[in-house]
Amino acid sequence: MNNIDYQKIFLEITAELEGIDDVGEVASYIPELGKVNPSKLGIHLMTVDKTGYSLGDSNEKFSIQSIAKVLSLTLALKIMGKDMWCRVGVEPSGSAFNSLVQLENEKGIPRNPFINAGAIVVCDILVSCLQNPKVELLDFIRKTSGIDTVKYCPEVADSEKKTGYRNYALTYFMKSFGNIHNDVDVVLDLYFHLCSIEMTCKELTQTFLFLAYAGVNPITNVRVISPERSKRINSVMQMCGFYDEAGEFAFKTGLPGKSGVGGGIIAVHPGQFCIAVWSPKLNVNGNSYKGMKVLEALTSKTQSSIF
Amino acid sequence: MNNIDYQKIFLEITAELEGIDDVGEVASYIPELGKVNPSKLGIHLMTVDKTGYSLGDSNEKFSIQSIAKVLSLTLALKIMGKDMWCRVGVEPSGSAFNSLVQLENEKGIPRNPFINAGAIVVCDILVSCLQNPKVELLDFIRKTSGIDTVKYCPEVADSEKKTGYRNYALTYFMKSFGNIHNDVDVVLDLYFHLCSIEMTCKELTQTFLFLAYAGVNPITNVRVISPERSKRINSVMQMCGFYDEAGEFAFKTGLPGKSGVGGGIIAVHPGQFCIAVWSPKLNVNGNSYKGMKVLEALTSKTQSSIF
Amino acid sequence: MNNIDYQKIFLEITAELEGIDDVGEVASYIPELGKVNPSKLGIHLMTVDKTGYSLGDSNEKFSIQSIAKVLSLTLALKIMGKDMWCRVGVEPSGSAFNSLVQLENEKGIPRNPFINAGAIVVCDILVSCLQNPKVELLDFIRKTSGIDTVKYCPEVADSEKKTGYRNYALTYFMKSFGNIHNDVDVVLDLYFHLCSIEMTCKELTQTFLFLAYAGVNPITNVRVISPERSKRINSVMQMCGFYDEAGEFAFKTGLPGKSGVGGGIIAVHPGQFCIAVWSPKLNVNGNSYKGMKVLEALTSKTQSSIF
Amino acid sequence: MNNIDYQKIFLEITAELEGIDDVGEVASYIPELGKVNPSKLGIHLMTVDKTGYSLGDSNEKFSIQSIAKVLSLTLALKIMGKDMWCRVGVEPSGSAFNSLVQLENEKGIPRNPFINAGAIVVCDILVSCLQNPKVELLDFIRKTSGIDTVKYCPEVADSEKKTGYRNYALTYFMKSFGNIHNDVDVVLDLYFHLCSIEMTCKELTQTFLFLAYAGVNPITNVRVISPERSKRINSVMQMCGFYDEAGEFAFKTGLPGKSGVGGGIIAVHPGQFCIAVWSPKLNVNGNSYKGMKVLEALTSKTQSSIF
Repeated sequence: MNNIDYQKIFLEITAELEGIDDVGEVASYIPELGKVNPSKLGIHLMTVDKTGYSLGDSNEKFSIQSIAKVLSLTLALKIMGKDMWCRVGVEPSGSAFNSLVQLENEKGIPRNPFINAGAIVVCDILVSCLQNPKVELLDFIRKTSGIDTVKYCPEVADSEKKTGYRNYALTYFMKSFGNIHNDVDVVLDLYFHLCSIEMTCKELTQTFLFLAYAGVNPITNVRVISPERSKRINSVMQMCGFYDEAGEFAFKTGLPGKSGVGGGIIAVHPGQFCIAVWSPKLNVNGNSYKGMKVLEALTSKTQSSIF
Repeated sequence: MNNIDYQKIFLEITAELEGIDDVGEVASYIPELGKVNPSKLGIHLMTVDKTGYSLGDSNEKFSIQSIAKVLSLTLALKIMGKDMWCRVGVEPSGSAFNSLVQLENEKGIPRNPFINAGAIVVCDILVSCLQNPKVELLDFIRKTSGIDTVKYCPEVADSEKKTGYRNYALTYFMKSFGNIHNDVDVVLDLYFHLCSIEMTCKELTQTFLFLAYAGVNPITNVRVISPERSKRINSVMQMCGFYDEAGEFAFKTGLPGKSGVGGGIIAVHPGQFCIAVWSPKLNVNGNSYKGMKVLEALTSKTQSSIF
Repeated sequence: MNNIDYQKIFLEITAELEGIDDVGEVASYIPELGKVNPSKLGIHLMTVDKTGYSLGDSNEKFSIQSIAKVLSLTLALKIMGKDMWCRVGVEPSGSAFNSLVQLENEKGIPRNPFINAGAIVVCDILVSCLQNPKVELLDFIRKTSGIDTVKYCPEVADSEKKTGYRNYALTYFMKSFGNIHNDVDVVLDLYFHLCSIEMTCKELTQTFLFLAYAGVNPITNVRVISPERSKRINSVMQMCGFYDEAGEFAFKTGLPGKSGVGGGIIAVHPGQFCIAVWSPKLNVNGNSYKGMKVLEALTSKTQSSIF
Repeated sequence: MNNIDYQKIFLEITAELEGIDDVGEVASYIPELGKVNPSKLGIHLMTVDKTGYSLGDSNEKFSIQSIAKVLSLTLALKIMGKDMWCRVGVEPSGSAFNSLVQLENEKGIPRNPFINAGAIVVCDILVSCLQNPKVELLDFIRKTSGIDTVKYCPEVADSEKKTGYRNYALTYFMKSFGNIHNDVDVVLDLYFHLCSIEMTCKELTQTFLFLAYAGVNPITNVRVISPERSKRINSVMQMCGFYDEAGEFAFKTGLPGKSGVGGGIIAVHPGQFCIAVWSPKLNVNGNSYKGMKVLEALTSKTQSSIF
């Protein structure tokens, strides 16, 4: 393991960030997200030998939103295996996270499991395979993280449902191509619940540490998924985890990662650590403005890039 | 360093590949490429401690084509630094290597330096910055590789020029947006020469080993570029090196790499090795059909993924 | 009025058509449309002085489908006037009738009231303005045509509803841009009923003769709409009535017209006549294969083009 | 013939227009166009019985630009007949006049002969068929108009050539699809000369009156083209004459017409008249702002729509 004093580095980074104007905007398409204090900043890094480093609001829960899509993907891969890749691709999208254009050109097969359309197809797969999808997915997330208190936030799920017209459009559109097998309302109910999960930065690192440890959560010693699939999930995060800013993130940070519109980001250094950052204001691409900067500074200072 | 018996693994892989029908097609848009023997197969892997492993036609020269774009990018980065990123992006393209659509949507700024448009902008930068671009670029490639005999193939360059209407279209189109500063014919002359370079698999690994060794060629001890930029070049290769199949390559192989329509592929495991594979028949995405399979098998057998 | 012997011309045309292989295909996306006898051929022409000319199955009812969109447009124009044009354009679409791409580029404003998205917006306008939209729309169609027995076909409407995923996608997509004001199910219920109307060729000419007579139905002497708006509806039919084949139809036929996937076409020669043709097999653009040929032959033989 | 007092109507219209702020902008992509006095306004209407009505700067020459594309189309149709329609379509484009996107989707076949790409293909056809294309095309235009002094403006042609990067891009792009048969420079030389022609409003009406008189110029009694083809040219003007504003022009004016970036517009009422308007300031779609308003007012006041 490395012997880097992350705590010191965190302090350096936040000191440097203080001089920077946060030009981002808090997501406000649903009231629940808009109510957050925009100046929150939390960081938690956990190494594979289970040492944790914290800063700021790292123990405060927030809506992890699309970060949860890594978990639904992991479960679908466990259940369905590589057959799932005929339903959703692994290529970066080259367009916005909720674009319908590419779906039209590519006959309803979403480019990857992290754009909205792809995550909805993953939910459709889970609805097909599970008896009680919402319960079983949550159960899987609890086992993966070792945190029994993780739960859906029904207010957020409900609010997404009431305003999620574009997600309905995406889902009906894929259904018109035959790539949604279940009832649209049932599939979206699972999807909206998935995105409503709340965690703290610390909980996020516990949850995703298995991706830094070849598929095993080193805290609980639970094997979440095989080493091969753990690598593949990392590769999909690398290529597709930041929508149309994936190249920028790879370029500047050099780690696989996934962001959410709640302002959270997780990143993984295989064999070394998992880090979670939270800052609610988003850049124009829908990724946390300060969160990106924190991770860029961290990997720059610690030379911790996979490249 | 790792102690893997690559030679043995090469033999296993080629034995396995024998049973597989190579459904690819040799590039034939210029006669010079079409004349190659389609059954050629060469592999060379060189570790950062300068041990080499060879198989098949690894000492036969072939047209490295777009693989050379990594070298023009490296030189442009050395000369112009990060300012060059306002002229070309680092995002995967999500469309074919020679598409004009994205250029129209994005005002003449190519998505990355490896699609044709992006590599042409890099050539335009070199034309602006160098006194004698063709000579100086070749000189840089010779110094990088430590191979004095590397040269352009004028027949290939000339043939590309005579049939490269789409490259002319791309270049004039970017010029209409102000993103080509020099004469179109001069820029494309450099571009066509760049793509005409011939190397063997062994020479390719010598040339690109600096990307596995933090910017220094361990054979010549020449620093080609800084460690930071070496990482960034690897990240751009990871995200954009295989056109619209970059995600697939990351998913299956897990290494940064770059392919060319001559059937060559290089891949880099930072800190460990550089490998070059050559097999002329291309899949539908324009990447070597067998070359992709060799690299997938290799990284699978040796667990050598960056993820 | 002209003194053309249309009856003789009809016979000539159908004789000529007998030698032609009808390469079209009957629409079969809902069972109700697939059940029709594909060899049906009906023609009815009615002049503004109320003389009618018939041939073949001109008194058999069929599903007029999108032809009805001219009637919903007419009613919306009567009610809302030119303000409706901020909700839907008057430009040809240059893409398929149910494409979502253009909607994404143009912020949810459909190009014209005849592509699906545009007709759905027109239905949304009617739902906003009318107390009992289905009843009042049907009432308007009965008054326009002077035919009291015109009615919706509930089986067709129901079948469209069950399979109309792409129309749901279009509607939710526009709602995400704020261009659908009412509940999606209510709007689509009106839309699916509108498209389910059945008429004979003869009834179609009675219904649309007002567009050849400056807004007045010469049979009932009812003013349907003002002369100015009658002209504008004709111009929209000319520009947008045949989806991505509008130019071809203008080029070959030279009359404003509108087609439906039931195989019907109406065309209008302002000041002279309205003609309806029905032949169920459709060309690749979704327009009646033989119907297009009949109209091309007719206008060619009678020199009745507006150009 | 009609007995409308056009002179009186012209005065009414220009009086009404005086209160309107002309928000357009003079084309300035080449210096020659930018030098024009932006407040110029000329109108000339000539009926098929050769009565002329003039207003303002109707005897001042200006650059007719794309209006000339109707003449190259007419000549190509005369020479090559309907076979030319496999090289260029007759559908409205649904996008800007110089877009490359549609060409990529449609394999290098331009949508219609009035967008730049289509007019360039027409020039390519003329280069293939004529011994001395520039001389013979000019000769044809002189015979069509009956005006021996019509000539190219070499300064404008030269200026277009020096800045016409996008036209080079379009042409090379089509050549990459095999839809340009001749040398790009030769084809564009003809194209740039075609667009450089200068005429007065009065000369324009003399030139295009054949489209209102079934293919014969009633002044010279020269048959320019057959009645059928005259109609078809009118239909293509109707559908495609105003780029992405064709529907709007049809909707408001109801006449086939063609505009140019020099601020000129011609419109034809088959059987009645040809009108030319000139006002240099262009709207966002590249059509004369005031010219469109004049024609809308004229057709509204005289009820002269083909619909």
